[in-house]
This record gives sequence, C-alpha cells and structure tokens, in this order.
Amino acid sequence: MQQVMTYISENKERFLNELLDLLRIPSVSANPAHKDDMIRMAESVQDHLLKAGADKAEIYKTEGHPIVFGEKVVDPSAPTVLVYGHYDVQPPDPLDLWDSPPFEPVIKKTNIHPEGAIFARGSCDDKGQFFMHVKAFEALNATEKLSCNVKFLLEGEEEVGSDNLEEFCRTYADMLSCDVILISDTSIISNDVPSISTGLRGLSYVEVEVTGPNKDLHSGVYGGAVANPINVLARMIASLKDDKEHITIPGFYDKVQVLSEEERSAMNAAPFDLQEYKDELKVNDVLGEEGFTTIERTSIRPTLDVNGMWGGYTGEGAKTVLPSKAYAKISMRLVPDQDPDEITDLFIQHFEKIAPPSVKVKVTPHHGGKPAVTPTDSKEYEAASKAMEQTFGKVPIPVRGGGSIPIVALFEEVLNVKTVLMGFGLDSDDIHSPNEHYGVFNFYKGIETIPYFYHYYAGSKA
Amino acid sequence: MQQVMTYISENKERFLNELLDLLRIPSVSANPAHKDDMIRMAESVQDHLLKAGADKAEIYKTEGHPIVFGEKVVDPSAPTVLVYGHYDVQPPDPLDLWDSPPFEPVIKKTNIHPEGAIFARGSCDDKGQFFMHVKAFEALNATEKLSCNVKFLLEGEEEVGSDNLEEFCRTYADMLSCDVILISDTSIISNDVPSISTGLRGLSYVEVEVTGPNKDLHSGVYGGAVANPINVLARMIASLKDDKEHITIPGFYDKVQVLSEEERSAMNAAPFDLQEYKDELKVNDVLGEEGFTTIERTSIRPTLDVNGMWGGYTGEGAKTVLPSKAYAKISMRLVPDQDPDEITDLFIQHFEKIAPPSVKVKVTPHHGGKPAVTPTDSKEYEAASKAMEQTFGKVPIPVRGGGSIPIVALFEEVLNVKTVLMGFGLDSDDIHSPNEHYGVFNFYKGIETIPYFYHYYAGSKA
Repeated sequence: MQQVMTYISENKERFLNELLDLLRIPSVSANPAHKDDMIRMAESVQDHLLKAGADKAEIYKTEGHPIVFGEKVVDPSAPTVLVYGHYDVQPPDPLDLWDSPPFEPVIKKTNIHPEGAIFARGSCDDKGQFFMHVKAFEALNATEKLSCNVKFLLEGEEEVGSDNLEEFCRTYADMLSCDVILISDTSIISNDVPSISTGLRGLSYVEVEVTGPNKDLHSGVYGGAVANPINVLARMIASLKDDKEHITIPGFYDKVQVLSEEERSAMNAAPFDLQEYKDELKVNDVLGEEGFTTIERTSIRPTLDVNGMWGGYTGEGAKTVLPSKAYAKISMRLVPDQDPDEITDLFIQHFEKIAPPSVKVKVTPHHGGKPAVTPTDSKEYEAASKAMEQTFGKVPIPVRGGGSIPIVALFEEVLNVKTVLMGFGLDSDDIHSPNEHYGVFNFYKGIETIPYFYHYYAGSKA
Repeated sequence: MQQVMTYISENKERFLNELLDLLRIPSVSANPAHKDDMIRMAESVQDHLLKAGADKAEIYKTEGHPIVFGEKVVDPSAPTVLVYGHYDVQPPDPLDLWDSPPFEPVIKKTNIHPEGAIFARGSCDDKGQFFMHVKAFEALNATEKLSCNVKFLLEGEEEVGSDNLEEFCRTYADMLSCDVILISDTSIISNDVPSISTGLRGLSYVEVEVTGPNKDLHSGVYGGAVANPINVLARMIASLKDDKEHITIPGFYDKVQVLSEEERSAMNAAPFDLQEYKDELKVNDVLGEEGFTTIERTSIRPTLDVNGMWGGYTGEGAKTVLPSKAYAKISMRLVPDQDPDEITDLFIQHFEKIAPPSVKVKVTPHHGGKPAVTPTDSKEYEAASKAMEQTFGKVPIPVRGGGSIPIVALFEEVLNVKTVLMGFGLDSDDIHSPNEHYGVFNFYKGIETIPYFYHYYAGSKA
C-alpha cells in the first residue's frame, strides 16, 4: 500500500483544490432555484469518476434531481463494494450567521482543527466525505492496487428525503448488486478517538398548519375571544412532551427496542465529558428524557423537535395582530423498530385529536426514513475497523449515531446488502448549521483509510 | 346646520379624492425605510389644516416622527375641543394576502358596505377617521358656523407606542389646553346600530428571545439531549394560560376591576349574535376565558396574545435543524386598574422564573398604555350622543371597546381633560390586517356628525 499512500501524498493539494471547486457549486436540493446547479454538480461528479478511473459513469434523470452511477470492474470474482454518497447540501440559511459565504470555501484553523478546516456548506455533509472515496479510488487505480470492484451511487436528494432513490434501486437492482455498501456520511468521536457508526436513527418529518380566524385580526378588538393560532399551536406542541420529556403521542414508544443494562453500560463507557459538551454549546444544562444519559438520548431513544415555527408579525417593532395562521415543522428521530409511516400516522391522528374546536389543523408529511442498526461481527465491519486502526493507530469504537441516513434501511430492504458507516466528520463540524466545516486532517485521513478498507475486505473474502 | 350639510354634500367627491391621496403615502411608522414618507405625510396634513381654515398649523420635530398641531380660535369664551388623530399606519404585512396593493386605494362594494368601501392601509385606522374631522372643520369654516375653538393634534407614532407624545404634551401643555378631547379611532356596532366607546383596554407588549445552544445544531446529532428553544418557548407560552384560559402570571388579575352583575347584564344586552360572529370569522367555536361572554372577553377582561413567533427553518421543504434561538412578540390587553409598567414587570419576573436552566431568556418591553374608561354622564358624552342620534336617527349605545388608545389615559393625566371616543369604523374593517377598508358611508357619516357635536357641545357650555 506504500505506493498508494505516496500517490495520495504527492497529490494532496490537487485533491483539496478539486474539493473546493465542488463546494463552489450551490447544490441545494430543497430550493427549486438551484435546479441548474444540481445538474452542473451531477456533471462534475460524473467527470470526476471518469477521470479517477471508472469504466463508465452515467447520469440518470429522476422525477427530482439526477443520480450519478459509475463503476469499475477489476475482476468478476473479486468482491464488489458500492460506495454511496450525496452531492446535494442543506439550505445555507440563516445566511447572516455565516462568517464567510457558504459557497465560497475558505480554510481556517480552529481549536479542534489546528491543521485547518474547510468552511463551506457541504464541506463535511457530504461533498467532502464522498469525494474522499473518489480520490482514494483514483489513487488505487493510478497505482493499479484496486482489489475490489467498485460502484459509485451518488444522489442529489438525500437532504430532501431521497424520494426517487427507492424506485431507482428497484429498477436497477442488478446494476447495483454488490457485497457491501460503504458510506462516509457520519462522524468519529474525535480526531484522537476513531469510531464507526453502528446504528442510525430513523426520521418522521411533518409540517403543521393551524388556522384560527379566516384572516388576520386586530388583537385588541378580537383578542381574548377568538382562538389565537400561535397560542394554540404552542399549547399543542408543549403537550407533545410531558414534564419528564417523554413524548405523549399514544403508541409512540410501542416498538422502541429496549437495550439491556449491559448494552447500555457499554455504550456509556465511550469517552464523553458532559461538562465539555455543555461548554461547547454554551448551555448551563442539558435537557432530555428522564432516565437516560446524553449518549443514550442521542442514539437509542426517539426524539421530537420543532425544526421551525412561524406565525403573525415577525418584523421590527410591535404589531398587535391576532394572526389567522401559525405553522411548525416538526421532526421525530426514530429508533429500531419504529416505522416512520406508522409514527407519522400516529402523529397526525394525535395532533388532529388534541386540536381544540376553535381551530382547524392540517398536517403534511415530509420525507421519512427507517432507523437502522449495522452488525459489528461482520467481515465488512472488521475490514473498516482494521483500516481505521491502520491509519489512526487505535481500534475504532462502535457507536450508535443520532442522525438519519434513511437509505441504509432502504438498501437492506431492496438490495439485501448490509452497510458500513465509516464516516470521518466530527459532531462539532456544524453540518446543517451556519459555518459548516470539515477538517483538512479528516479529509486526508479518509482518503488514506479507504484503500485499506478495500485491501482488508478483499483479503477477508479471498 | 343645513348650510353645513349642503356644503358637505356639494364637496363629497373632492373630500373622498383628497383622502385617497393621503392613503397613497405609505406612512408606516414602524419601518425606518418610510422615514421620508412620514415627513411627506406630516407636511400634507399641515397643508390640509391650513386650507381647511386653521389660523396656524405647525410641524413639531420629535425624537421620532413629527407631530402636527393646528388651531383656530373663534371666540376665547367659547369651549375648546382638541381633536386627536394619528397619520401613521400599521405595517401592511403580510403583503401577499392583500387583494390590491395596500397603498393604492380602490373603492369596492362589499356585503357590509353596499355603498362601497375604501381599501387601503390606514383607510379606517386612522387616516380616514381623522380626515373626517379636517373636512367637517372645513365645512364649518366655509359656512362660518364653527361654534367652538378647535385644536388639532395629529401624531405619527400611535402604531409604535406614541413614545414622544407624553413629553410633547408636557412641554406644550398650555398650547394644548382645552375642555375636551375628541377622537375618532374606534368603531360603531354596525351602520344601523351607532355606538360610542366608553372604555378602552390598556396594553403591555413584550418581545421574548429564548436561546438554547450557541449555534444552530443538527437535530439528529443533538436532538433529544439539548434544549430546543422552540419547544421550550412553546411550553413557556402554553403555561401562561391554564385550561380555563385564565392567565397564570402571579398578580396579573390583582387590580382588575370587577363589574357588578347589573353592569354585566347591561353590557350583554347590546346587540350581538354569536353565530354571526363565528360565521364572519369562519371558526367553529370561539375560545376565551371561562365564565365570561364574548362581549366581556373583548372589553372588561384582560388578555394575552402571541402576535408573532418565529425560530428555526421556515422556508420550503424540510431542514433538520435544532435552532439556537426562538422569538415571540406577546401583548397583553389590560383593563382598569391594571398598570402597564407593573404588568410588564410581572411578566418579565414570571417569564424568567419559568425558564428551564437549559435555556437563556431575554425579555424586551415594547410600548405600553394604560386602560381608560370615559364617563357617560358628561356634557361631552351627551353632545356626541345627540350628534349621532341626529345623523343616524338612533341613540348610540355606550360600549366598552377591546382595543387600546393609550393616549386617552395620557391626556387625562397630563392635560387633565376627558376624552370622547366618537369613532365611525366597524370591527369588520380589517384594521391591522390585510385588506383594511373603511366604508364610504362611514366616512361621510362622520363628516356630517362632527359638526353637530360642536353644535351641541357649544350649546351645553353656554
């Protein structure tokens, strides 16, 4: 592997500059205004795959944004690894909280990243991470050391629910057939403490609209007599959790897997400093479900968060309006064996039931995703673990993550293949937030680790 | 008075066109971008006063928007009436709910206004109403029938709290000295059922900011473990009222005047159809404090309404953010003898107390105003009642209103003068809402009624 590492070392700066170019494309999947940027981004990804040594790379149109598929077959008898990633990014709002423009990447040193971090929307989630795979693939091809067949599946709708991916997987199941799926879209505990994600939460996401009177009213003339939809929505949202932060939707916890005390102890033995956690977020206290630790609350327990709420007058100064409507976006993170469709239905039923007769309620489901747990006793987990041990000098810790990559459950269902979640980000990288960044250290560490994964995985199969 | 009525009749169209011109000036006091429009509006008001026959009319600069003062002395021994009004208007947001642009007045017929209504921001509140006084004054001057000395005090900050009016009143108390204050900035029950406002609620208005983590976070990574400021704010707001819609702030009701059963019966005898009220607002039910009727809830009882709330992602689609901050604008309508400063203090103390340790809370008071009750056994009330009886053909009903004109309490305190609230709007005129309008019938009825007020008031004094 020395030749591969030398190649990587000699081409480091170019790799970084190529990533910066990708980060300059504002591929925001949620915003229709960026439709052309999405196409430009897909073409760029296709081009990179071909230049890195793919036998072929195609852009597939969907009802939404295109999917890029590329592959290289080195030996039909060798194992096949399918690399999944997404080239779309979260909306950059609120823009005013960015220290530099979200699509003009800059490299700055931080306390956590003394070697510098790339600040840009998508730097970590997921352009920086999927591009490590393209560059590792290039290094292996250039040095003729690729020991697995490799397929790339890069989509543009991960941040908006991967609506068209399931149909694509079903239609092209043969083309996508593989032995394992490898994804870098998660994080490690720290740059000193490598880890591998072994579980991800699912997601149910709804938008609610509460209508009081049929028009905005003067709060002096009507206040006190007509239901104010903001007050009502606040009360409805408040009632979704009790004073122990348990979610009150009937049936919500019915299918939640309960871990053994042993499993919980092992999980809580992972390095974690609550005071550091609070200091980092500048909060005096954490808040979560009674009876569970912060590690548990963000991994093995489901949640309910309002991701956005608005209604009435939100400009400067005072306006005494009793608004007609109030809105909220509410997401629930799910754990095995909760089913997102079922949870969405339970939410809708409950939310409609708790609405007082003085308002009307409309609930619109957004995308959902199933929770997933990946095994730690598999060949692929072992290959990832050895690869990280090789480059970090430490055996990585298995960790259940709090985020969602709904496609993990999808791949298992449709392609019948397990996934390895070998991500290189940090929880502090501000993905989905202003000033998203990705460590230069992490970017290179990923490019170096991935070739070892192929090496050990091919070896294990042989 | 026939000559006066003839003059009004002959100049009706011009009066209306002049009002339309005033409505074209976007004098939004809350928005600094309209600073120049405010000055243009003040100059226009000054010009109208002079043309209508004022001896003098001056623009007084303040820390905020200017105040226009004008007067005409007909006889030092005659009674002096001070007409108060405001030339500023509410912000027109949300703009997309207007059927025609807010500052391009159009006249359209409606069910309630078969003779047409003027649709524009400020048409009723308060340009259309104060301008009736200017035109009545013109008619009386033109026909040499003015029997009272008249002073005009027209400010540009009523919608943002009249912050500079108190100092102005104290500084120019001599100039403003008068026997009664006459204001048209309230409503009548309907065009068939005239009424006079005899009470107004006070106002306490605060803006709250709840901060959770120091930056927006990914709700998957942190959700369930870190306080979400929107969820927390929703819970705090919900807790401000109990399930009987009583406000839970300790001490809030301590100074609320309790009316006798007799007074409440008289109040509830006013024409009011709950079904019509609900139909008009397209609601299945009303919502308000247990133990009180809709009429009582909007007049003799204090309220708490969220006028605006916002936080997190409010754009299209889904974003899984756990935001750093959530905000709300909250107003409380007050009744005698609640004091706005005291209530604001009680609110702040309570709100800070109920905040969990996982968030930080900041409360910023906006303007407030004292509640006021005007006597019905006074000469001025009698003059207004007779004037309305003359033009409507029915004795007006005394009604306590729900809105606030904080300056009524201010005038009583600083100038030691009582106010008559002879307004001509309708509650359905959508003031503070999109599609604000003012009946053409009401505009002319006001111009016709005001001269009779002077007539009866001068007569009573003699």
